Amino acid sequence: MLDKSKTYLIVGLGLLGGKYAQVLSQKGYNVTGITHSQSTLDYALQHDYIRAGKNADFEDLVREADCIIFGLYPTVLLDWVKQYGPLIRPGTMVTDVSGVKRGVVEPVQAALPEGVEFIASHPMAGRETSGIAHSAEVNFAPANFIITPTEKNSQAGIDWCRDLAAELGFKRISVLTPAEHDHMIGYVSQLCHAIAVSLMCASDNSELANYTGDSFRDLTRIAHINDKMWAELFLWNKDNLISEIDMFESALQDMREKLVRDDREGLEEMFRLSTKRREAFDKK
Amino acid sequence: MLDKSKTYLIVGLGLLGGKYAQVLSQKGYNVTGITHSQSTLDYALQHDYIRAGKNADFEDLVREADCIIFGLYPTVLLDWVKQYGPLIRPGTMVTDVSGVKRGVVEPVQAALPEGVEFIASHPMAGRETSGIAHSAEVNFAPANFIITPTEKNSQAGIDWCRDLAAELGFKRISVLTPAEHDHMIGYVSQLCHAIAVSLMCASDNSELANYTGDSFRDLTRIAHINDKMWAELFLWNKDNLISEIDMFESALQDMREKLVRDDREGLEEMFRLSTKRREAFDKK
Repeated sequence: MLDKSKTYLIVGLGLLGGKYAQVLSQKGYNVTGITHSQSTLDYALQHDYIRAGKNADFEDLVREADCIIFGLYPTVLLDWVKQYGPLIRPGTMVTDVSGVKRGVVEPVQAALPEGVEFIASHPMAGRETSGIAHSAEVNFAPANFIITPTEKNSQAGIDWCRDLAAELGFKRISVLTPAEHDHMIGYVSQLCHAIAVSLMCASDNSELANYTGDSFRDLTRIAHINDKMWAELFLWNKDNLISEIDMFESALQDMREKLVRDDREGLEEMFRLSTKRREAFDKK
Repeated sequence: MLDKSKTYLIVGLGLLGGKYAQVLSQKGYNVTGITHSQSTLDYALQHDYIRAGKNADFEDLVREADCIIFGLYPTVLLDWVKQYGPLIRPGTMVTDVSGVKRGVVEPVQAALPEGVEFIASHPMAGRETSGIAHSAEVNFAPANFIITPTEKNSQAGIDWCRDLAAELGFKRISVLTPAEHDHMIGYVSQLCHAIAVSLMCASDNSELANYTGDSFRDLTRIAHINDKMWAELFLWNKDNLISEIDMFESALQDMREKLVRDDREGLEEMFRLSTKRREAFDKK
């Protein structure tokens, strides 16, 4: 259980930061917030997502916090901890929501004072929308929550993060190393977004919009994409993503080759393999 | 309005043929059926999808029909009309459900007797399942229905087909040439299936199944695929499909190149284009 006597500071009140604030406040936790945007601050206060918050001169909020959650993009997060990290009190527990880990965890740990524990995590619950006004639509229950400790993390830190995830409503909480996380995310999420965007960009077939069915809509739902955030996530995991793109391309080229050669049995075999693997995913 | 005094014969009682039978029977039409499978025949009769049906010696059903709907795969359809086409009475209206048109329409028209009109159509309402036992799950209301006349078709034929679609519950009925249809389906449906299957076949990442989120599930829902039907549809439209695969590959390679070169602005630009085009699709 999380400690209700502690103060939880959320830095960055976007879609996920806003959601964390909303859920924790609803459950009676003492939540404060920092955001650069006045309108976001107003929204968070008006909707009781936070008890108090600032968009400038917020050093006191940082010093007072017992736990800090960063709802910031990786690049912004790194800049922030370099500038304000020294204000954080030893004994403070810190986590984030970043969608990539290898480039984030160690630099952030290195920038924080001795005695401050950064236990990185990733709530895999992003949506095509962004911003606190959409936070209420986010649903954590069916989503995966990944904790990514390094050798600098303690069991207490991992337990705290697990308790946080449980309080937020996540049912599926796992622990992976940052490297395992980035490999996983490269396939399970980033490759899918790369494919959906490429499909939309491939040609201006707007006259065909009248004929789209379920298959096209399913494949392109995530083609509606937050450009700044995803460019960061892609570049911060480019080695894994390029590798996944190459493996996918190889399979698609294989299918193209079977088409060229009229290899009906070869196509049927690919379809059966695909069906078999998809069924295995369904059982999970 | 369709004529309720006429007899509607459905040849091939699979997912779509079965659904046509179900809907027309429910609405009081006189529906008969032909299928090679005894269990399908039993199912159709037990569920009152058809008034009468046969799986052999069915020449009388063919001769008596006023309207015929073929629920057969393209290759099977061509063989069937070569063998039984001559039995069809002049004045009979005939359509199909094939997912490709160019290789089907003209050969079928040529194989049918003078005075029999084949007005091809495509109900874009397939599901990942097949077979009459799943027909009840099919929903025509949100789906597209495409009529593909040639210069051999009459306005009366097109009108009949439109009335059929309306009775079946389709809200979106369009007319395209067979060539326009196959171009459209290559992008809107077949390319999507090619992508989904390739994604599932690319690597045996089954250990990652625990971490899949919405994006992966959306992209691979259609990776659960009827192998025989889709191999046919792909091969019968291979020129269009290969062309769409190449255009898609080109966009994905473009994205890969931007990753390699750390081209953040280039990636953001692709994401914005993708978002803009996807929003245009949403408005339809």
